Amino acid sequence: MSECIFCKIIKDEIPSYTVYEDDYFKVILDKFPSNLGHMLIITKKHYSNIYELDLAVAERLYPLAAETAIKLKKVLNCEGINILQNNEAAANQTVHHFHMHVIPRYENDSVSIDWNSKDPTSKEFEDMLKLYSKLYLLA
Amino acid sequence: MSECIFCKIIKDEIPSYTVYEDDYFKVILDKFPSNLGHMLIITKKHYSNIYELDLAVAERLYPLAAETAIKLKKVLNCEGINILQNNEAAANQTVHHFHMHVIPRYENDSVSIDWNSKDPTSKEFEDMLKLYSKLYLLA
Repeated sequence: MSECIFCKIIKDEIPSYTVYEDDYFKVILDKFPSNLGHMLIITKKHYSNIYELDLAVAERLYPLAAETAIKLKKVLNCEGINILQNNEAAANQTVHHFHMHVIPRYENDSVSIDWNSKDPTSKEFEDMLKLYSKLYLLA
Repeated sequence: MSECIFCKIIKDEIPSYTVYEDDYFKVILDKFPSNLGHMLIITKKHYSNIYELDLAVAERLYPLAAETAIKLKKVLNCEGINILQNNEAAANQTVHHFHMHVIPRYENDSVSIDWNSKDPTSKEFEDMLKLYSKLYLLA
């Protein structure tokens, strides 16, 4: 844990461009932005990823992301915003301390956050639905 | 509004592979998945994007995303998950009704959700920080 670079940023042991801070989060400028103004919302507590989040943190996250997106749009006058949150190395998570990207976008910028969609059969969809239904016990 | 495809899905006027539903959200299988099992969390109320979200909805969103991610990982045994939420056409939003992607990922799958990061100067970072500080009045 003491080696975690985001824990060090939270504790101000490593300097960061901090935009906002409260009891739960620190919002900083990403040092490796997709576009200038790209922000990271970092939890103060160390969670490796979304699977570990406490409810109190999860509840406060999207209100902050929304407020951040609104501010960012006003400041940059950007044409769109991606909210991206990666979990585990296979999903491009590089720092294993929960963080959310808030990414300003412009028409024809060089950022590519998209995919070639697949075309499953109805059978494949139905099988997937069955699988999920077995475990989806939220309601 | 009556033309919005997601409003029609919410009202069951268009069929969908629905995995979960509560007062605020419907979770469905994306018809054009990046990988099989790709889910969409759709708000029941029509918001064009993140800028319009009500607080009550924003607060409930990430707890549901986290629960969804945990279930999805358990069901698919996937190696990672991207949470992606696009706002406006410049950011690849195609249906202009708020929705969040929950995307299962695997090592060396063909999905690319990444970017070539830019390398701003300290001056550029400092200028950006000043701009944000002017408007960041959340605290």
